[in-house]
Amino acid sequence: MIIGRIIGTVVSSQKDERLLGKKLLIVRPIDLDGKDQSGYVVAVDTVGAGFHERVIVVGGSSARMAEGNKDCPVDSAIIGVIDTIDIEPDETSR
Amino acid sequence: MIIGRIIGTVVSSQKDERLLGKKLLIVRPIDLDGKDQSGYVVAVDTVGAGFHERVIVVGGSSARMAEGNKDCPVDSAIIGVIDTIDIEPDETSR
Amino acid sequence: MIIGRIIGTVVSSQKDERLLGKKLLIVRPIDLDGKDQSGYVVAVDTVGAGFHERVIVVGGSSARMAEGNKDCPVDSAIIGVIDTIDIEPDETSR
Amino acid sequence: MIIGRIIGTVVSSQKDERLLGKKLLIVRPIDLDGKDQSGYVVAVDTVGAGFHERVIVVGGSSARMAEGNKDCPVDSAIIGVIDTIDIEPDETSR
Amino acid sequence: MIIGRIIGTVVSSQKDERLLGKKLLIVRPIDLDGKDQSGYVVAVDTVGAGFHERVIVVGGSSARMAEGNKDCPVDSAIIGVIDTIDIEPDETSR
Repeated sequence: MIIGRIIGTVVSSQKDERLLGKKLLIVRPIDLDGKDQSGYVVAVDTVGAGFHERVIVVGGSSARMAEGNKDCPVDSAIIGVIDTIDIEPDETSR
Repeated sequence: MIIGRIIGTVVSSQKDERLLGKKLLIVRPIDLDGKDQSGYVVAVDTVGAGFHERVIVVGGSSARMAEGNKDCPVDSAIIGVIDTIDIEPDETSR
Repeated sequence: MIIGRIIGTVVSSQKDERLLGKKLLIVRPIDLDGKDQSGYVVAVDTVGAGFHERVIVVGGSSARMAEGNKDCPVDSAIIGVIDTIDIEPDETSR
Repeated sequence: MIIGRIIGTVVSSQKDERLLGKKLLIVRPIDLDGKDQSGYVVAVDTVGAGFHERVIVVGGSSARMAEGNKDCPVDSAIIGVIDTIDIEPDETSR
Repeated sequence: MIIGRIIGTVVSSQKDERLLGKKLLIVRPIDLDGKDQSGYVVAVDTVGAGFHERVIVVGGSSARMAEGNKDCPVDSAIIGVIDTIDIEPDETSR
């Protein structure tokens, strides 16, 4: 999974019927310092995430395992809102 | 999913029979400002999208979940025509 | 799917038995002007494509949906020989 | 699979219910000399790996084949703690 | 599929039980001239490949279709030892 920040929405009326009622959010991947990375992904929100929140995004066929996405044509889903990210860099290099 | 713009078509007569009748469109990924990115993907249209329209493209096995693609040898499908993209950049950096 | 040009073959006698009788071709991805891109992919031919022909290549689990590839350990398949590629660049930038 | 080193954890309380009780670790890919590479991946620990340990990470739908991940919305899992990596570079170039 | 050369092994005792008895090899991707490329992949050997041999590597869910990998948490498998690679570059550019 990757970590991203929600920065927008995509609105589409002419779409696959299994997308009806689904919220399509634009997620910007961030690095572990919280800085924006390049690129974006359009993901289905399945946990009620809010704007600018940091979220966990799952990709590929596993996006269809997220709540409500069974058999849906989606390859990316938001599956968690992040409380904290704890990094423990290794002091002794290998 | 990614966002792209339809820029062309691929015509093939000698092909897998499950592709018969399917429209194979060339989609150029775009960034969130609508500018063309590099590369392209050939995707099956499943929503009746038109030339130059901005569309949502799903990749991987989920492309087979799009309308009419069940068990088809396709890894990319257009699943929505985009009305609007709304970006709300975060004013407070984290 | 991507577009490529067939540039070679891979011969292997010590291999998974489900690859017996399959033609493994080397495909060079090309851009929309027909120019070679970097890299290559080894794909199973499922449509009788010939050397130097432009072909459509499907990747991932969908390669197993191509004719004759059911349950085979292949992640890339040639599913069509291309007749024409028609590009209609957008004159009005967005 | 790739090789990485565990450098952190992600804590999320508002999440898909199938993630309950799962440990989400941040893994930094390393090269074969043990040096950190760029990027990271959030992976479910399924083998009781510890901080800074070198681990094997599986991606895609196969992450759901790891112990306890059946039908879970995860695309990355830690499936082994590495004892040794043995490299035998080829002396005769081909 | 990609082509690589076997350059090492990964030993892990604390691992998913479905990896027991499987040989995890480190494969360096090579280009069509046989030169090493950057990066590496850890793949399960399913054909009895030897050190420094050139092999065909399948990725993604199809790695589970290789002999003995059914339902295993692996995303990369060696499915063939290469005898020859024949390249026929196109003399007439398109």
